[in-house]
Amino acid sequence: MTERVLLPWKDIEVPDGQPARIYDGTGPLPVDVDQIEFYVLPYDRGPEPAKLLSRLPALKAVQTLSAGVEGLAPLVPEGVQLANGRGLHDLSVAEHAMALIHAAQRDLPRWFAQQATGSWVREHTRSLADSRVLLVGYGSIGQAIERQLLAAEAVVTRVARTARPSAGVHAVSELRDLLPAADIVVLILPGTAETQGLIGAAELRLLPDDALIVNVGRGTAIDTDALLAETSSGRLRAGLDVVDPEPLPSDHPLWTVSGVVITPHIAGGSASFYPRAKCLATEQVRRFFGGLPLLNLV
Amino acid sequence: MTERVLLPWKDIEVPDGQPARIYDGTGPLPVDVDQIEFYVLPYDRGPEPAKLLSRLPALKAVQTLSAGVEGLAPLVPEGVQLANGRGLHDLSVAEHAMALIHAAQRDLPRWFAQQATGSWVREHTRSLADSRVLLVGYGSIGQAIERQLLAAEAVVTRVARTARPSAGVHAVSELRDLLPAADIVVLILPGTAETQGLIGAAELRLLPDDALIVNVGRGTAIDTDALLAETSSGRLRAGLDVVDPEPLPSDHPLWTVSGVVITPHIAGGSASFYPRAKCLATEQVRRFFGGLPLLNLV
Repeated sequence: MTERVLLPWKDIEVPDGQPARIYDGTGPLPVDVDQIEFYVLPYDRGPEPAKLLSRLPALKAVQTLSAGVEGLAPLVPEGVQLANGRGLHDLSVAEHAMALIHAAQRDLPRWFAQQATGSWVREHTRSLADSRVLLVGYGSIGQAIERQLLAAEAVVTRVARTARPSAGVHAVSELRDLLPAADIVVLILPGTAETQGLIGAAELRLLPDDALIVNVGRGTAIDTDALLAETSSGRLRAGLDVVDPEPLPSDHPLWTVSGVVITPHIAGGSASFYPRAKCLATEQVRRFFGGLPLLNLV
Repeated sequence: MTERVLLPWKDIEVPDGQPARIYDGTGPLPVDVDQIEFYVLPYDRGPEPAKLLSRLPALKAVQTLSAGVEGLAPLVPEGVQLANGRGLHDLSVAEHAMALIHAAQRDLPRWFAQQATGSWVREHTRSLADSRVLLVGYGSIGQAIERQLLAAEAVVTRVARTARPSAGVHAVSELRDLLPAADIVVLILPGTAETQGLIGAAELRLLPDDALIVNVGRGTAIDTDALLAETSSGRLRAGLDVVDPEPLPSDHPLWTVSGVVITPHIAGGSASFYPRAKCLATEQVRRFFGGLPLLNLV
């Protein structure tokens, strides 16, 4: 075998018509991989694909299609370049945040329940338009969400780790001053020591009645017990793609709170990821064989 | 009684501190209304409010907060001005269209069903981003939907009754040529003889497999039996706020088709309607007493 590239999909072109080996992350690990220099890890396929890292003696570069590399980085051999999938999921996550917001504001669970019984009962709902949205996390995903919120005529306040006054971005340290004027809080924060428990009982208490908390970052940013208390009482609402712990145990009381919608950490995995991932992989393979520096190096 | 204005809400100011009579559309019709010259009809309260029209001898102008006046116009006495609520619902309807699109693309009914059983099973979904959306109806609501679709990075093709090539708008007569390239069709059409049955079996057949049809205009634009056939087979999907007939009978087979989400004609009735309606009513009362022409005259 002479393949020097290991790819998750067939439709990624390798320069000079070189053959590529395909491994989509299902089935047994590929063998005869002694010449592989560039490995694009299959996305969202559990721990198997990373096991191959120690069996590729010629490996020079690894491309992951995830944004976070916490689990992967320690497994990458010394001297091998690691590039991440920063940006590939932005639109998918932003879109899912919008789906959760719309579902909560326009009472979709109620209508779906009525649909199941063939019941045509009408009632006015909340709206997203005019709502005051506190966007906590203002990286590329936060900015994608903001564009969609503004198009829906919501009123957005931006919060990031550090204030950027010239860009109208507040610091996380100002959060307690901002929460009382938020109808909707959207969290898009990485799972770090700094963000752990950022939204606890004291922060939740500052929100106005009926406020909605949406989390598409990491579940650890919210104190689950505190959120359970404030949503169970009916005072607050939530739309959660991430929770703490994950997976949420099947008997966890949060599942059945009225006013809470939960999806199982699927914000990043939608159809719009694939063309972007293929574009990035194609470009990185081209750069690798062209002797150019890789993008998104960690 | 000296009130010359009949209003659905207290917080609309009448010029010169004149008193206003309040009738919110619930309870018995008000009496002692001989001096009422300007009547703002309560919104979405059934047929009662319109019955008052024949009992207002001093009436000069009627303001409805609906966009359509098909049922109301014949009841307005000769010589009385009628103004409609054009635009008040645009944002609310546009937002609900987005809610239906997101619900369908991101599989919300599936996740809500999983939530009910405490089940954490993950799977990738379709996305709205990159989807080719055929927007049929390009008035103010269609344009509001378009802004939100573009912010979500969907690819929009505009269709209206008549082509406007300079604005990139196709004519409804071109629909059959456009349907084969649509992943999502959004209908925002009034209920007229021209739009009746616009989307029938032949049009549905032209859509690619798995396409989504969203209707937030009038139910009569789609042939319900044809839609039932194409969705029951699993070939097409639908997100419907309006249906034909309305209300949909509780034993209608469309209720239970997988891949079809139905809400009971509630797109226009959300919180963002109220401030806009109060603004319009305030402005119209001001114009009426200031001798200025009313807006939105029918």
